[in-house]
Amino acid sequence: MKFVTGECRQTTTYGGLAGGGLNNAGLTLHGAVLALRDMGGLVFLTLRLADGAVQCVCDPAVLPEGLTEECAVELSGILRSEPRAPGGFEVGVEQIAVLSRPAEPMPVSLAKKGLDLHLDTELALRPVVLRHEKRRAVFKLQEGLCRAFREYLTAQRFTEVHTPKIVHAGAEGGSNIFKLDYFGKKAYLAQSPQFYKQTMVGVYERVFEIGPVFRAEKHSTTRHLNEYTGLDFEMGYISSFYDVMEMETGFLQYVVELLAKDCAYELALLGVELPDASHIPCLRFDEAKRLAAEKYGYKIRDPYDLEPEEEAHIGQYAKEVLGSDFLFVTHYPSKKRPFYAMDDPVDPKYTLSFDLLFRGMEVTTGGQRIHDYAAQVAKMEARGMDPAGFESYLMIHKHGMPPHGGLGIGLERLTMKLCGLENVRQACLFPRDRSRLEP
Amino acid sequence: MKFVTGECRQTTTYGGLAGGGLNNAGLTLHGAVLALRDMGGLVFLTLRLADGAVQCVCDPAVLPEGLTEECAVELSGILRSEPRAPGGFEVGVEQIAVLSRPAEPMPVSLAKKGLDLHLDTELALRPVVLRHEKRRAVFKLQEGLCRAFREYLTAQRFTEVHTPKIVHAGAEGGSNIFKLDYFGKKAYLAQSPQFYKQTMVGVYERVFEIGPVFRAEKHSTTRHLNEYTGLDFEMGYISSFYDVMEMETGFLQYVVELLAKDCAYELALLGVELPDASHIPCLRFDEAKRLAAEKYGYKIRDPYDLEPEEEAHIGQYAKEVLGSDFLFVTHYPSKKRPFYAMDDPVDPKYTLSFDLLFRGMEVTTGGQRIHDYAAQVAKMEARGMDPAGFESYLMIHKHGMPPHGGLGIGLERLTMKLCGLENVRQACLFPRDRSRLEP
Repeated sequence: MKFVTGECRQTTTYGGLAGGGLNNAGLTLHGAVLALRDMGGLVFLTLRLADGAVQCVCDPAVLPEGLTEECAVELSGILRSEPRAPGGFEVGVEQIAVLSRPAEPMPVSLAKKGLDLHLDTELALRPVVLRHEKRRAVFKLQEGLCRAFREYLTAQRFTEVHTPKIVHAGAEGGSNIFKLDYFGKKAYLAQSPQFYKQTMVGVYERVFEIGPVFRAEKHSTTRHLNEYTGLDFEMGYISSFYDVMEMETGFLQYVVELLAKDCAYELALLGVELPDASHIPCLRFDEAKRLAAEKYGYKIRDPYDLEPEEEAHIGQYAKEVLGSDFLFVTHYPSKKRPFYAMDDPVDPKYTLSFDLLFRGMEVTTGGQRIHDYAAQVAKMEARGMDPAGFESYLMIHKHGMPPHGGLGIGLERLTMKLCGLENVRQACLFPRDRSRLEP
Repeated sequence: MKFVTGECRQTTTYGGLAGGGLNNAGLTLHGAVLALRDMGGLVFLTLRLADGAVQCVCDPAVLPEGLTEECAVELSGILRSEPRAPGGFEVGVEQIAVLSRPAEPMPVSLAKKGLDLHLDTELALRPVVLRHEKRRAVFKLQEGLCRAFREYLTAQRFTEVHTPKIVHAGAEGGSNIFKLDYFGKKAYLAQSPQFYKQTMVGVYERVFEIGPVFRAEKHSTTRHLNEYTGLDFEMGYISSFYDVMEMETGFLQYVVELLAKDCAYELALLGVELPDASHIPCLRFDEAKRLAAEKYGYKIRDPYDLEPEEEAHIGQYAKEVLGSDFLFVTHYPSKKRPFYAMDDPVDPKYTLSFDLLFRGMEVTTGGQRIHDYAAQVAKMEARGMDPAGFESYLMIHKHGMPPHGGLGIGLERLTMKLCGLENVRQACLFPRDRSRLEP
């Protein structure tokens, strides 16, 4: 009888080799052939590992016949210090075995330092272009953002939840919702986990979820995706929506710390400058609009809305005048916020809510929610909504909810602004937009 | 100017109080009133915190007027040792402030030890029934499963990815796929992240994803959901599909360790016995069928399929004869596995694949995938599929993929069997089935 005992196959990483502790040791590596250069008498083989590339030097005699780029190989040899090699080390190869071969050469060279492809070409070739070190670096940083979110919130006693993406009603209203036939009934794809994360505040007090969010936005912009990853949290027993902003700020500080520690290679490769999240300024919505308009000399077109260009100006103001990459814009107009947002008792035309701008773009929307049943029903009715259609959501208010609030962060936008990318599609592995359903 | 500096509001947990370090200290707690008992002269208030309930003792004079169950309150008092109280401590209350009040009493008592509701009633009331300590415990264990998955795989150098759920083609074939109108084009909800996780093996060698999976199963059973959470991983440079099974076994061992450490309270509350994952037996598909049929005296109906009842018998065999809650069943028939499964070169009627049975139910499907372009195209054509419809997927094979394999674990099934639940709906916060789109 065969038993499996959890003896996991180990893998060698660039980071592990670069540590230097393995110098002059014999080792076995596996990876893809990134480049082959015959220097006459010696062949330089660059081997792509999971997190970096290693220079390997072979006698032509050990090279398997027909070895090409993107062959998967296993090679054994000696790791040795070599100041002229990238990273300061190389592998003197003794044996190479080919594990698999490509059927055709790559459409672009992955060994080049940069990839200057038109976005349409890049996205069509994504499945293989992602193998380029600069693309890998972007999504490694994205992985760090998610890990930081979870680690930070778990330490702050949040509980992770998984809530349904097929829903019977939209949480955010409007027409940007995908419809679905669900066994003959009409269903929708969730625009946010809003109702469910509020529900779970009644259960665990503090919850978070990382999951897909679907928005049937009909316009094509550099900042919208039709499917994105939402980093959502919701917390009970807040004394005001500033508690939510403090929590986000704590998370951002942790992000900076984690990326500096775990992703130094990727940050350097992409030339990313980490932002300072130690203290984030706050401006009221109307005040932010006024200050930016005065500073940059333009007229405010709509006092109740914030256009992307105006957001960019406000971000510029935050950077130039306040010295910050981040800015909390608070007290958004009530009519621009969903029905669950709590109005400011001081002036109910505005809400106890905020957006976070990062380098001139909104990356977060959050605020305090209505917890009182009568108040929630009244606001729905004032908007012409029928509370009967939201019975299972209103059940939580009816049977008691603490004061609470939360936020949603767009992972791709956060990645985009962190990495200084031009288009949010570059910050999504396989973006969905009006014309793009594959890869 | 106001600045936010990351000073996060702290919360007090039952676990924090139970530690005992705070005895005789003054403290402030917030929570929901779980129960109120007037003992004449003294009122016992049970306060529900995020992770447990605390006995609080009040003079009737400090009780706010009209205080009821499910009021959210903030109270201050002295924590003191009290052997007769649950947990061995109580809070002598000095002040109580009501933060919010329910509009109506709870439909069921949350203070009772057990909740014996019909499943339909339970699910209809889920938004508030989840506040019961036994329900909270189930999903706290589920949170532990996810955390263990990520922590273990991250330590094994896997990278987390987020892949699209709106797709242009199904990965698993068959008719159980939800259709969607995507700006006038036909689209589907992903049956698994299969194509994308394989793609990402070419990028990061080892990847994982936790995300929703959609299956339009038309039948209603105790083990199927129409939307569930998949724990998926995929790894490159495997020497056989046993590497995948070793990795899963390592994960399960880590689960047991993590739950024992972090969730002792929940395990005890639910009476959960942790399984032994130290060594998991493996049987071939045909052998497992034969042994169970012989042992339990029934005839094999279909040599190529494994019905749920037969799975239960094989699980019983694993427990009674092999002494294991787990069993890897390997070498599933090729015609029952998807087109990307690698056939066994020794006998191509079978595949290099496996399921993991846990207490008699399949909780994982995995195996080695075809990495060679010509072999993949040939298998698709042999099945009457048109490779032209899978161009962006086949791009990875065309340009070179290492030998690789992976698996998908159903989070709700794993939770269900761990907790000894009768129905998978009990292991999903807000289950989706043929008739259930809300809550």
